[in-house]
Amino acid sequence: MPSAALLLWAPLPLLALPAVAALPGLAPTLLLLPAAFHATSHAVAACRATLLARGFAGRDLLKPHRPELVPESAGLPAAATYVLLLFCFIPFKYARSDVHDLEARADGAWQGQIGGRSGFPHHELSLYLCALLSILSSVLLGWLDDIFDIRWRLKMPIPLVASLPMLVVYHAGGGGTSVVVPGWPGFLRELLGRVIDLGPLYYVFISMLSTFSVHSINILAGINGVEVGQAVVIAASLCVNSAMYLDPRAGEPGSWASKELRDRHLFSLSLLVPFCGCALGLLRWNRFPSRVFVGDTWCYFAGQVLACAGVLGHFSKTLLLFFIPQVFNFLLSCPQLFGIVPCPRHRVPKVHASSLALYPSRALLKDAKPSAKLSALRRPILELLQALRLVQLEYDKRGAITSTTNLTLINALLVFAGVRGPPSLPADSADGEGKEAAADAAPSGPRITEPTLWGLVMGTQIAGSLLAFTVRYWLAGVVFPVQ
Amino acid sequence: MPSAALLLWAPLPLLALPAVAALPGLAPTLLLLPAAFHATSHAVAACRATLLARGFAGRDLLKPHRPELVPESAGLPAAATYVLLLFCFIPFKYARSDVHDLEARADGAWQGQIGGRSGFPHHELSLYLCALLSILSSVLLGWLDDIFDIRWRLKMPIPLVASLPMLVVYHAGGGGTSVVVPGWPGFLRELLGRVIDLGPLYYVFISMLSTFSVHSINILAGINGVEVGQAVVIAASLCVNSAMYLDPRAGEPGSWASKELRDRHLFSLSLLVPFCGCALGLLRWNRFPSRVFVGDTWCYFAGQVLACAGVLGHFSKTLLLFFIPQVFNFLLSCPQLFGIVPCPRHRVPKVHASSLALYPSRALLKDAKPSAKLSALRRPILELLQALRLVQLEYDKRGAITSTTNLTLINALLVFAGVRGPPSLPADSADGEGKEAAADAAPSGPRITEPTLWGLVMGTQIAGSLLAFTVRYWLAGVVFPVQ
Repeated sequence: MPSAALLLWAPLPLLALPAVAALPGLAPTLLLLPAAFHATSHAVAACRATLLARGFAGRDLLKPHRPELVPESAGLPAAATYVLLLFCFIPFKYARSDVHDLEARADGAWQGQIGGRSGFPHHELSLYLCALLSILSSVLLGWLDDIFDIRWRLKMPIPLVASLPMLVVYHAGGGGTSVVVPGWPGFLRELLGRVIDLGPLYYVFISMLSTFSVHSINILAGINGVEVGQAVVIAASLCVNSAMYLDPRAGEPGSWASKELRDRHLFSLSLLVPFCGCALGLLRWNRFPSRVFVGDTWCYFAGQVLACAGVLGHFSKTLLLFFIPQVFNFLLSCPQLFGIVPCPRHRVPKVHASSLALYPSRALLKDAKPSAKLSALRRPILELLQALRLVQLEYDKRGAITSTTNLTLINALLVFAGVRGPPSLPADSADGEGKEAAADAAPSGPRITEPTLWGLVMGTQIAGSLLAFTVRYWLAGVVFPVQ
Repeated sequence: MPSAALLLWAPLPLLALPAVAALPGLAPTLLLLPAAFHATSHAVAACRATLLARGFAGRDLLKPHRPELVPESAGLPAAATYVLLLFCFIPFKYARSDVHDLEARADGAWQGQIGGRSGFPHHELSLYLCALLSILSSVLLGWLDDIFDIRWRLKMPIPLVASLPMLVVYHAGGGGTSVVVPGWPGFLRELLGRVIDLGPLYYVFISMLSTFSVHSINILAGINGVEVGQAVVIAASLCVNSAMYLDPRAGEPGSWASKELRDRHLFSLSLLVPFCGCALGLLRWNRFPSRVFVGDTWCYFAGQVLACAGVLGHFSKTLLLFFIPQVFNFLLSCPQLFGIVPCPRHRVPKVHASSLALYPSRALLKDAKPSAKLSALRRPILELLQALRLVQLEYDKRGAITSTTNLTLINALLVFAGVRGPPSLPADSADGEGKEAAADAAPSGPRITEPTLWGLVMGTQIAGSLLAFTVRYWLAGVVFPVQ
């Protein structure tokens, strides 16, 4: 599968090739891609036995035939490898014996006269350091979460803390805090002008962005390889997006990219390209059938890398576009997250023991006691979702809804494909887990196994990226006209 | 004990008071001292039950009457509190709404014209970020060591990796790589000149420095509170040293400190003062009788904070002077570390079960099979150390040495004070542990209990600091004359 994924993104280095010729600074970043892949793969392999021995292990709910424990928290060796590689990369990037050479790089962008050393790209170095700091603190916090199972209300603001250094450096870099007002409907621009400065609110937005990206990867989970796969697709899409700005003639007449823009995207690539390598190295072990699980450490780490690349590369709104499937998953989950529909502890699909076909898991509605106000919303919401083929409902003889498939993107894909699980039994209660799924009746509809479903999720993610490119480079020009 | 320790260092804020009046930037740093103390104390208290439940627990070898487990790795909540406080401190320090105000601070030291924002102290920010990055990566690596018990040969270079960002920022700050050649013997200066530029070798020196400070705190351990206590004394001594440079009239005629020097020491204080607060908050729980153990996490964290303050404050050679007791402990340990004398697994003193008096632990020599060359060195070394009252030997009837007290500072203090353990029995073999120490015969000499021994070690550390000040501000002037 990593080889397939590599093949999928083979155009990436090809796209970058002409840029490397003109921008030699790109070469070490690209060399880190295979280095990160192999180093991560070896690090994960080396840590498996120790993780098991130390009790970081779990059972795979969707493998009724494989009762053995799988090592958990393999995101930690992957993240540690990433940070280690980027640490070792610092001296090569910044420790020139004669820093005054750098003054020759008269880009005008990132140079300074600072006590001690002139010509040293101090701001670029602080960008790099603060990205590493934000990422490393996310890794530590994710690892603490894996060990101590931090409660949700404490967990929510964790990425906010980790993003603090990023905010300060964004400020130091003179980051914009303005957004362009849509050109339609017309009165908006008459009222607000073409550009509106959000000021401190913009900092709230970018700090929420890292919280969002961390937790949205965390909730689109449950089947082998999906946490890593989605991060690979998003990161690779961002790489493609950044590669488009790598014009060696940037700033000259005839080029659409300014030097500042190009250098910021070069910076983002130096975070994202090694990340792709690490994620693919981890995917080698995490893909179906998983030989490691990635744990919360991975979600915190991946979310923060993507947020750092977006914020410090000054394309945070574009970043959000590549999270369309995650946003969709979040919106779909809202009725369960806010108590309108009961939410069982596990919402992963269930597996039919003999055929290994997956079918959507269900939440039973009769035992639930939501407030009267919210339960009035329940029926119209669920029936709307059923009309959209995102959930499949069960009714009793009087026409009341007795159960619904769980409201996640993964279940919705199964419902959409036409998979129908066996009728839910009373024993299959709201907190029922995978092992009870060994019902006798096979699911009806197409037989979708775990690797197929993984492919469907990845396909959705890639479709989301294509949509994002369309919105960013075509629709944005329509909605936000320059004049 | 923390109150006693606070009392001990009460002169510190008093010394700083006149400086605060003239340097308002110092006030938030000093406010972090009590904040760090209370936050750490609460964080450690809150984590005790969870650490125990997750199996991070150990038995206290020196408390035969207390068989219950004590939570381990409490350095982690302390370090996390420290990093969190310093994270939250970043925006207050650097996120001014109008950074151009900073240009008014016409110190000439740390300002720049950098793409985007002019007047922003980019280099100072990268100093701060890289210090946090080095510290955070040390914490993560220490925590990994606590969980996975990394082997020594892999463990040794760990702090090197964590110090990489520090080296680059030292370079970016135009850090000196020269050392002054001693004025005596005279031919040295005739040969080498007054100042010699070590170039890259100097970077090797400062990266070794963080390795040294981490591991030297790690090996001067074994009795309650000693890992934290030594870090408090060293940090407080460095604070006193830095406070001496806080001249508000720095740079003007009549002041001995330059503005550059003052600002660097201000920076070091912003790392060291909160560290003192954290260490004292942890000591509250770690002092005799320990209700938590600190683990390797603490040693990695404390060593890296001290190394960062020294290197980024540009006083790395002075820093080394405050590690005199650690250097002494290391040199004393060398015969055991290099196999000249056998080295048992635990070298902590032993305890007499009924009186709780401590006596030095022993290494048996008869079972050892060192190489012929090294064993020739053994007798002269041990007898020299005995003559210096640092070890106490046992002989058989033929005059051969049968055992020696272990070669650590802590055992040496007991020997020096005149404590003699009961004669070693054959059962008390080289790998004997504390529980076998419940011998019938009480140790002879003065009765030294664990808190008394802690006091002796702290006294040694304070004496070391006084010696360091003497060397730095008197002897240095004699050995390294200006002309």
